[in-house]
Amino acid sequence: MSSAHPASHDVVAVGNAIVDVLAHADDAFLDAHGMAKGMMTLIDADRAEEIYRAMGPGVECSGGSAANTAAVMAALGGRPAYVGKVRDDLLGAVFRHDIEAAGVTFSCKPGADGAATARCLILVTKDAQRTMNTYLGACRELTPDDIDADLIAGAKAVYLEGYLWDEPAAKAAMRRAAEIARGAGREVALTLSDPFCVTRHRPEFQALVKTETDILFANEEEALALFESRTLDDAIAAIRPHVKLAAITRGAKGCVVVSGNATFEVAGQAVYDVADTTGAGDAFAAGFLRAHTQGFEPQVCGRLGNMAAARIITHFGARPDRPMADLYVQATA
Amino acid sequence: MSSAHPASHDVVAVGNAIVDVLAHADDAFLDAHGMAKGMMTLIDADRAEEIYRAMGPGVECSGGSAANTAAVMAALGGRPAYVGKVRDDLLGAVFRHDIEAAGVTFSCKPGADGAATARCLILVTKDAQRTMNTYLGACRELTPDDIDADLIAGAKAVYLEGYLWDEPAAKAAMRRAAEIARGAGREVALTLSDPFCVTRHRPEFQALVKTETDILFANEEEALALFESRTLDDAIAAIRPHVKLAAITRGAKGCVVVSGNATFEVAGQAVYDVADTTGAGDAFAAGFLRAHTQGFEPQVCGRLGNMAAARIITHFGARPDRPMADLYVQATA
Repeated sequence: MSSAHPASHDVVAVGNAIVDVLAHADDAFLDAHGMAKGMMTLIDADRAEEIYRAMGPGVECSGGSAANTAAVMAALGGRPAYVGKVRDDLLGAVFRHDIEAAGVTFSCKPGADGAATARCLILVTKDAQRTMNTYLGACRELTPDDIDADLIAGAKAVYLEGYLWDEPAAKAAMRRAAEIARGAGREVALTLSDPFCVTRHRPEFQALVKTETDILFANEEEALALFESRTLDDAIAAIRPHVKLAAITRGAKGCVVVSGNATFEVAGQAVYDVADTTGAGDAFAAGFLRAHTQGFEPQVCGRLGNMAAARIITHFGARPDRPMADLYVQATA
Repeated sequence: MSSAHPASHDVVAVGNAIVDVLAHADDAFLDAHGMAKGMMTLIDADRAEEIYRAMGPGVECSGGSAANTAAVMAALGGRPAYVGKVRDDLLGAVFRHDIEAAGVTFSCKPGADGAATARCLILVTKDAQRTMNTYLGACRELTPDDIDADLIAGAKAVYLEGYLWDEPAAKAAMRRAAEIARGAGREVALTLSDPFCVTRHRPEFQALVKTETDILFANEEEALALFESRTLDDAIAAIRPHVKLAAITRGAKGCVVVSGNATFEVAGQAVYDVADTTGAGDAFAAGFLRAHTQGFEPQVCGRLGNMAAARIITHFGARPDRPMADLYVQATA
């Protein structure tokens, strides 16, 4: 945080603006529709229609990985902003309402034509795992013009979603956001989002981590995929030289935080009533960044990340259902 | 059940087809916006916009009182159908998907123009009470032409929502459905829906109960309002001569079932983790009718009603989040 100017936001999160449609399903449903459990798959409009017709009654709520992170940051008492593209349709209005009502500054003009607001059809199985099918729609129209330089330069950090890398224009927007942040002496945080996403773009993600990333978020699988490591220790060794901080989440086991030469294992919070793991990683990043942007040491960041993730998985959906300021107080005490 | 023909459905529910938008709120929010806690208020498009702007992040899911009843009946293993008017817009597609995916036969052509699909802005307070603000939209265009005579005549009972009485065309549709059912030797069930609704239409509701209703559903407040009774005993005495069966729900205390000269108090199910009371009455009616249409005696009907209500209030929203066939087995054992 070498910038001379006081920050007006803690973090500007940039990502795919998506409305989630959550429904319960069993393993047989996933098999019958050729879905890989726990994964995110990009789908087109026809496939979205086909899956929607087949799936059970749904609950709609705003989602999107980085948007979830922004919403959880706000619930933790932080000052987040969010950039993501919706269409000026009903779901777009729902998305905007929800992110603003969560206390997040929303900065992106909705598209007046083109594809509809994105939706993600999420099947939640009895083991509380979520399998995601994303129709990107309007998200594909996010461009560098949607990036407000003052907003980015005025935040302590920018947080980028690896998912954006699937679209050339969105990738350019992401790069532009990182460039502005670095130019203003701000930090760049990146989440790898998904092991398949890493595999699709490995050389580019490696370059991005090596040259433009200060803080890296990944789960174990994504961390292994990035440099094709065989063990977590190998992955940590491969990542360590390139970033200031890396947080690798390990589900119920908590996380490993890598900071310079140090490595901290931070035990996970016990959760007895997991309802839906959707958004666990998003909430982790929120907790981590909330503590980090207040200058707390890596262990505290990891602890608040774990606590936020543990809280979010006790209910259906990836957005907070109530304030989480108590967690910030507890973790930083 | 004097009809000579076997029934293809247990119940055809007729009501306002509504998508719910649920958000948490505190009492101060209700006060600031002049809302009466626990009540349903009809609002216009401008007021809907105003409340939506002010309320917190929402979760969208299909609702509508009689539609919730139909969905719970299906979860309990019954064969329900549903008639309600949506527009051919995004929320209308969501409504149709959800009711069909719940296992309910949906019978009503969506409107090609006119007002948008109805939505109900529901504020859930910490005490798990829900305060509802309904924008009726397309529901106002339900007419007698939407009533499929074969469908009604082919079901053991028709179930009508008092809320329909607020719109002249919908009222006519409701009367037509009752007329067809009676002509086919089927039963007519009516729920009073809301004490304000009863107050708005008291003489007409009294006439409807006296001349066209076999099974009456009401909560205590609605039962008192119908004949302006001062005590529950007075209300029961006033209602008893006019219907075959009446079920009066009493929240945590359970229900009173009135059948001929007999009165049965059926104790409520203990619920330790009430999340949201939205849909408790709807679920009660579903449980009651599920048992009744299988020929079970009034106490069993009341018991299954109580059990279904207890189950639905343990989660956010008024539709079942999983099958409830276990309750049917338990209640009828």
